[in-house]
Amino acid sequence: MRIGVFCTNEYTTPPPKGIIYAPLVVAQQVADGLTERGHDVTVYAPRGSRMKSKIITSELRPLYNEPKLKEFNAINLERGVASYENIALSDLFRHAQKGKYDILHIHPSIRAVFYAPLVKIPVVFTLHDPLLPGKSFFYNKVRAKNIHYVSISNAQRRPAPKLPWTSTIYNGVDLRRFPFQKTHGKHLVIVGRMKVEKGIYEAILAARKTRTPLKIAGGPAQGPYWERKIKPYLSNTIKHVGMLPYSKIPKFISEARGFLFPIKWEEPFGLVMIESMATGTPVIAFNRGSVSEIMKNNKTGFIVNNFNGMVRAIGKLDDIDRRICRDHVEKNFSIEKMINGYEDTFKKLTRKK
Amino acid sequence: MRIGVFCTNEYTTPPPKGIIYAPLVVAQQVADGLTERGHDVTVYAPRGSRMKSKIITSELRPLYNEPKLKEFNAINLERGVASYENIALSDLFRHAQKGKYDILHIHPSIRAVFYAPLVKIPVVFTLHDPLLPGKSFFYNKVRAKNIHYVSISNAQRRPAPKLPWTSTIYNGVDLRRFPFQKTHGKHLVIVGRMKVEKGIYEAILAARKTRTPLKIAGGPAQGPYWERKIKPYLSNTIKHVGMLPYSKIPKFISEARGFLFPIKWEEPFGLVMIESMATGTPVIAFNRGSVSEIMKNNKTGFIVNNFNGMVRAIGKLDDIDRRICRDHVEKNFSIEKMINGYEDTFKKLTRKK
Repeated sequence: MRIGVFCTNEYTTPPPKGIIYAPLVVAQQVADGLTERGHDVTVYAPRGSRMKSKIITSELRPLYNEPKLKEFNAINLERGVASYENIALSDLFRHAQKGKYDILHIHPSIRAVFYAPLVKIPVVFTLHDPLLPGKSFFYNKVRAKNIHYVSISNAQRRPAPKLPWTSTIYNGVDLRRFPFQKTHGKHLVIVGRMKVEKGIYEAILAARKTRTPLKIAGGPAQGPYWERKIKPYLSNTIKHVGMLPYSKIPKFISEARGFLFPIKWEEPFGLVMIESMATGTPVIAFNRGSVSEIMKNNKTGFIVNNFNGMVRAIGKLDDIDRRICRDHVEKNFSIEKMINGYEDTFKKLTRKK
Repeated sequence: MRIGVFCTNEYTTPPPKGIIYAPLVVAQQVADGLTERGHDVTVYAPRGSRMKSKIITSELRPLYNEPKLKEFNAINLERGVASYENIALSDLFRHAQKGKYDILHIHPSIRAVFYAPLVKIPVVFTLHDPLLPGKSFFYNKVRAKNIHYVSISNAQRRPAPKLPWTSTIYNGVDLRRFPFQKTHGKHLVIVGRMKVEKGIYEAILAARKTRTPLKIAGGPAQGPYWERKIKPYLSNTIKHVGMLPYSKIPKFISEARGFLFPIKWEEPFGLVMIESMATGTPVIAFNRGSVSEIMKNNKTGFIVNNFNGMVRAIGKLDDIDRRICRDHVEKNFSIEKMINGYEDTFKKLTRKK
């Protein structure tokens, strides 16, 4: 198949050090994976990108390296980002119109939806974010027979069940980057941004209540949530290790007795859950969003309904066989399985091989 | 000719009371004028719009009446406005692609530029704003043979002389709404938003220096510029009359001895100058942006280089024949002349009649 792909041109693919942007990781895994399987994949990404697929830059630097845009950004950053993306989208859809592709795959820029009715080939959008009402409004408003949505969990579809969904394709984890580790320490870990919805504060309270050490990775170490809910509780046993580079996350997680995930929002997927289970570290998660699809309760950790449930589950962590956690991820959340999902979906929609 | 038109869907056309948005006034004048001349004009405007041309609403309310968007607006108003516009643009360009139009006319949403390469008919953009570097970057970046720009003054082109300009078409004033008035008071007026670039403060200083009464119309009566540069100088002779409805502007201007326009930016057109001259009231303007194209120095007022020039010119106002001001506008800045400009340009680009 001839596949045209767009994710972002704010950053190169892969992004520079210090930038973690999950949709871009998935976009590269899928594009490179399909290229390795012999498909003709072209990604619209800025200069400096390095991928196995072909790249069309539209002669653009990554947005944050474009000095000409400094004034524009000062006026309105969002307008600058939008227009910058539109340059690449304009090229992508013009090339599609000329017959260059069999199918387009977009991650998931809302801006691209409006171009889809202007081409005849299927346009597949992988939605990476929760479907807040403001976004659903637009996805519902633009209807064309060639528009198809991929959800990254079934739970993600709930706010907009009538969109033209074509598949749920779970994200995958690089099993070599997250190797299995049988032995572990006595402490718990949590990895996430210092935001209310990630439940860092609840993790701290659960660790204190159970007198279990906790290591917290993530930033930023500033702002009201950090000042009021995190910093005052740090101690010899509740430690903040800062923002870890992605290369240090596997070891950090694998050494823990358990991974806490007391989320306070409808998590659309939750990559850290499969990263943790891949290393063998079981997860204790609040039952929201995708959690019940990603974990096996009592097998790869515990799905709990509230704070007291999390406290009780911490006491049962030694009942979990770390090997079962790993097996669950190898079977269900490998990159290969994710690429199979996209390849099958694209074949179904184009009726090509 | 069959003409597809887009300006905005934030508001109805015409906009509700209290909203003054110059591009929308021009858009309606041109669309209605071309309809009266027998062209087949379709405007993409939200529900509740009232025009002589056909209207396609895309089943949208005006953005600010759309309750479903409240959450989205709170997250990011600009993103909401952009997506909302894109719904209409997606329809407009899809219809164009199907052969519904001979030419498209856009006022001047940067977002629409990126769709133009996806159709074959000419797409004409009237640029209403100064060409700041951030915008020029995008206009320069998207090149297609069917893209054409209309400037509203020659001065407006200076920052981007290499864009594919097709014509300069000056805005027009409704000569019946701004009737000639021979008699006048002793005071000066200025009409404009309370912003640095409009030079309200300089107008106040010039009025004080010449001991001439000044009436100021415009808002908002708040913010640092208002508090520091306007409010402390108000008196029995320097009066702020508030934000006048558009229907009261003609009388307000026509009663003055002179209109001050000490702008501190590159004004792309300056509708108030032709509104003032239409009533017979001469203008004293700083020589920036479009001023030397719109006024005749020593005939319809005075073009000056600085504050002292403005002070001297106030003393010479009685040398101006108010009838010459009116004649200048009737000859050069009528709505009919503006519509001629668009009709000629569209005929040239489509080679149709």
